[in-house]
Amino acid sequence: MTVTAPRGFSAAGVAAGLKSSGDPDVALVLNTGPDDVAAAVFTTNRFPAAPVQWSRQVLAGQRCRAVVLNSGGANACTGPEGFADTHTTAEHVAEELGLGAIDVAVASTGLIGMRLPMDKLTAGVTEAAQALSADGGADAARAIMTTDSVPKTTVQQRDGWSIGGMAKGAGMLAPSLATMLVVLTTDAVVPAEVLQPALKTATRLSVERVDSDGCLSTNDTVIVLANGASGVTPTAAEFTEALVAAATDLAMQLLADAEGSTKDIAITVRNAASVDDALTAGRACARNNLLKTALFGNDPNWGRVLAAIGTTDAAFEADQVDVTINGVTVCRGGSIGDPREGVDLTGRAITIDVDLKAGGEEATIWTNDLSIAYVHENSAYST
Amino acid sequence: MTVTAPRGFSAAGVAAGLKSSGDPDVALVLNTGPDDVAAAVFTTNRFPAAPVQWSRQVLAGQRCRAVVLNSGGANACTGPEGFADTHTTAEHVAEELGLGAIDVAVASTGLIGMRLPMDKLTAGVTEAAQALSADGGADAARAIMTTDSVPKTTVQQRDGWSIGGMAKGAGMLAPSLATMLVVLTTDAVVPAEVLQPALKTATRLSVERVDSDGCLSTNDTVIVLANGASGVTPTAAEFTEALVAAATDLAMQLLADAEGSTKDIAITVRNAASVDDALTAGRACARNNLLKTALFGNDPNWGRVLAAIGTTDAAFEADQVDVTINGVTVCRGGSIGDPREGVDLTGRAITIDVDLKAGGEEATIWTNDLSIAYVHENSAYST
Repeated sequence: MTVTAPRGFSAAGVAAGLKSSGDPDVALVLNTGPDDVAAAVFTTNRFPAAPVQWSRQVLAGQRCRAVVLNSGGANACTGPEGFADTHTTAEHVAEELGLGAIDVAVASTGLIGMRLPMDKLTAGVTEAAQALSADGGADAARAIMTTDSVPKTTVQQRDGWSIGGMAKGAGMLAPSLATMLVVLTTDAVVPAEVLQPALKTATRLSVERVDSDGCLSTNDTVIVLANGASGVTPTAAEFTEALVAAATDLAMQLLADAEGSTKDIAITVRNAASVDDALTAGRACARNNLLKTALFGNDPNWGRVLAAIGTTDAAFEADQVDVTINGVTVCRGGSIGDPREGVDLTGRAITIDVDLKAGGEEATIWTNDLSIAYVHENSAYST
Repeated sequence: MTVTAPRGFSAAGVAAGLKSSGDPDVALVLNTGPDDVAAAVFTTNRFPAAPVQWSRQVLAGQRCRAVVLNSGGANACTGPEGFADTHTTAEHVAEELGLGAIDVAVASTGLIGMRLPMDKLTAGVTEAAQALSADGGADAARAIMTTDSVPKTTVQQRDGWSIGGMAKGAGMLAPSLATMLVVLTTDAVVPAEVLQPALKTATRLSVERVDSDGCLSTNDTVIVLANGASGVTPTAAEFTEALVAAATDLAMQLLADAEGSTKDIAITVRNAASVDDALTAGRACARNNLLKTALFGNDPNWGRVLAAIGTTDAAFEADQVDVTINGVTVCRGGSIGDPREGVDLTGRAITIDVDLKAGGEEATIWTNDLSIAYVHENSAYST
């Protein structure tokens, strides 16, 4: 059901021919009300794609009625012409649905630096508008996939209201958002002053802590639509908890499907002087290609953990740091700990615990290994 | 001839059994005077290896008579016992050569987090001391290799004096030094107050601008020994020019031999507001795995160049930036430029020129592609 699990939402996914494979590539999500409160978080990349530039304007009013998404082309780095294409797309959706263009957010994903085939996209929008259905969530989730191997969806049921969501993303997962498009819907009654901070908290604790390959996309977009159709008004805390759960569920699905990965790696930095220190140290590990290739090779190479955090300014003393990999403390006090032979890395899940002994804060960064398949998939992506 | 090209230096390289392959693994370089002026630059990693900690003390006096280097073990993250091993090594060299331990710098390379087999190392040092020869430079260069496929050496002949050098390194090439050991020698008369700044300039313009995989090692060491045996005193500018040439020659050899690489990529950022901005933007490209895999796949994916520099704080306007790959301006004004089909990436050398149009400064960062062989080599390294 995904984005159509909450009451008052319909969705569709169709094949417009943007993808050479013929797979579905245009998704539409419509909020039928009564409310149209919305919030969004976008990429911080300084080359935001045309749909990001457009949708920022839409969301500035904290209202949104519909989201149109396409795979098969990112419409990024396409200049004023690309922005005009996005504007045309929003206008066409608005016409089909009897809305104003400013009610329609746009999101795109695919190759950077190519114009979209607007004739196909426009025809696809028309088809999607006709196909809108309260059961269309699954079709929409499928239509936003690029190199994803499975659609990613979530439903959080609460007392009389719910949150639904869909996501795409399978690489370029990095902080300040993974390369991903996420649409979340809720039939709870949520005022804008609750929705925006709830979304910030949810993304900060979930997708912003997934750092698959350190690459920040031009198109990242997370939108949440709240229509109040349930008539139930949860507290801000209740709503935020559910939104964090939905975003975390999607983030873990993104991680599990990262391009060519063979490991899901949770790097927890404990006893840091600050959460920022813990995140900095964790990210340094998540971005260290030598560590990531070692884990691909089932090698508990803790020296590469130390070499990575040794490049940061996090507070710690070099002769105090412990490293535990899958339960074995292979490094104690910055030196040799228990035998590395005791570490079993044959499964998909890997935990790396770094104890900085510098304070009382902790944070976890999730990443993947660097595999031969990652290189293969990303070297062949546009060719 | 390498480090023994200048007068007054002898060297040796022997197989002590530290490497399971039986290849040479202990190198010794002796400065026979008359002067013993020295300077060094070390890793900025906060987990400096035991030999780095030791050699910092040696070089604090700006003097050094001998350098002993081993491959087959980094002696990093080995605690007080590892430091004692380094100290013992220096003392043994000093005994063999009639020096004080404080005259002997130590450098190690290999796997982190393993103690060195001191019985083998000590015996190797004795053998190396006996083998010291004015023709021993090539043997020494071979004994410091790890995953290097070829030894790296340089000789810069000037008017009556020269600089020789050797280097090892084939991965973990990152700023603030590549993972590498470099020994440079000169028979010029160079006072300490000229030698240290000349070395800083030389490393800043060469090895610190090579960023193969963004990983900073625990063992990086660059040492220069000056003995004045030629009796010639070049000006500071003359000497610095020659030292920059020697270090750059070695840096380009390191780049060409980076683990599993198939491309040498020069990323030049032009018209930046500052050299720092140019370096920041260049490094962001050099560390972007998606760009590096695209180049491995001969794909001129300029969108990934923009996505990379879009994560930096370098001064530029998004709609002003041009990107030229191997001579084809595939991106103009942050948007689509000349057809990417015109770019020939089949050779090993790739140039990426980014024009920020934000000032008058420029800098070049050198990096490699991210290949299947890189992943293979680094995932299997310690197993």
